[in-house]
Amino acid sequence: MSLASFYANAPRHLVAVDCIIFGFEDGKLKLLIIQRKVDPLAGAFSLVGGFVQENESTDHAAIRVLRQTTGIRDIFMDQLRAYGDAGRDAGARVISLAYYALIRISEHDKLLAQQHGAHWLSLHQIPELIFDHNEMLRDALERLRDRAKFHPLGFELLPEKFSLPQLRNLYEEIYQRPLDKRNFRKKILAMDILEKLDEKDKSTSKKGAHLYRFDRKKYDALTQHGFVFEI
Amino acid sequence: MSLASFYANAPRHLVAVDCIIFGFEDGKLKLLIIQRKVDPLAGAFSLVGGFVQENESTDHAAIRVLRQTTGIRDIFMDQLRAYGDAGRDAGARVISLAYYALIRISEHDKLLAQQHGAHWLSLHQIPELIFDHNEMLRDALERLRDRAKFHPLGFELLPEKFSLPQLRNLYEEIYQRPLDKRNFRKKILAMDILEKLDEKDKSTSKKGAHLYRFDRKKYDALTQHGFVFEI
Repeated sequence: MSLASFYANAPRHLVAVDCIIFGFEDGKLKLLIIQRKVDPLAGAFSLVGGFVQENESTDHAAIRVLRQTTGIRDIFMDQLRAYGDAGRDAGARVISLAYYALIRISEHDKLLAQQHGAHWLSLHQIPELIFDHNEMLRDALERLRDRAKFHPLGFELLPEKFSLPQLRNLYEEIYQRPLDKRNFRKKILAMDILEKLDEKDKSTSKKGAHLYRFDRKKYDALTQHGFVFEI
Repeated sequence: MSLASFYANAPRHLVAVDCIIFGFEDGKLKLLIIQRKVDPLAGAFSLVGGFVQENESTDHAAIRVLRQTTGIRDIFMDQLRAYGDAGRDAGARVISLAYYALIRISEHDKLLAQQHGAHWLSLHQIPELIFDHNEMLRDALERLRDRAKFHPLGFELLPEKFSLPQLRNLYEEIYQRPLDKRNFRKKILAMDILEKLDEKDKSTSKKGAHLYRFDRKKYDALTQHGFVFEI
């Protein structure tokens, strides 16, 4: 058999990429959701997604789809996993590769995203999504919790300067439960990745909350090294 | 646009599954490798792989391909990642989903595997593999090291009863470097997942090495919980 006929006999599949984009804003972990404007599925909510084209890598497809759909560019996306059940998409057999990323919402053009029908929704606002997109979101959150357990987290999501309550808030959003203030403070400071600044955030109280920033070198070293963060 | 024409306009792709199957035997971490018997690529070495068919899930495709190619069945495979570069396969554009598994070689029919042209090779014996299969192997080893760092490892690879030198040997194979005996012993015992048996392995010395087995309940709890194993 020639190489060409070997390949010619194999079935071909539609392959999609779906992007799970997390941001953090106003104390809420948010997900970028599309409300589809045109048929098919007009009005339905979904992740940002599209088909892999002939001559593009799947990683590039994810970057292109995100840019075309939301205007967001220049971010790094990690693969989550492939979703390959034969009946997962109601319209046809589509194999989907899910990607995820954590971004600072403020650094990306929100108006542009909205022009495309893209919206940032906090986790408890997420509606029923098409196909298995809710499952993808659950899996991505699971991955995020795993990351928070073994590696430092926050650099991609928080502003450069943040208070401890803000950082705790982020972890509370990821775990979807309240965390003990003193315990969190003790454990996060013990990581030795925070640099205390001579500034305060006075937006939430008169006394104000000290601002911190990540010591990038220590943060990266701890990312490399790993730990178990018990909360 | 109808749902049908929406899908009709999208490009279709060949989708393969490739299986990275690790086993542990004679003190060596081994990989299941195929030497292809028929054209195309007769004589070439590759991972166990094949195309995803029309109506099967990608997870099932991996299980089927492994069974048909090697006779190995009833094992659980994890997804590693998707390999989707447009030029990764010399013959055609193929998107590959890599899966990996850890198995006990003794529990699977070695003759059957060999009839199919499948061989267990230790890591330093692995030849040049087709396409990006060597990269897949590197990534799978990386994943294995990550698992060994944050979770207990060995249950799927070792016989039910094993000595500490055997267990250390497995870690040495995964990390591809020698580990300090006393340090390893101290750290692995501190995990409190091993049950010391009243038997000795006398195959390697007159004095013999105590045999252990995993306390499955503690092993599973620690798998759930995680830790950092520094070696």
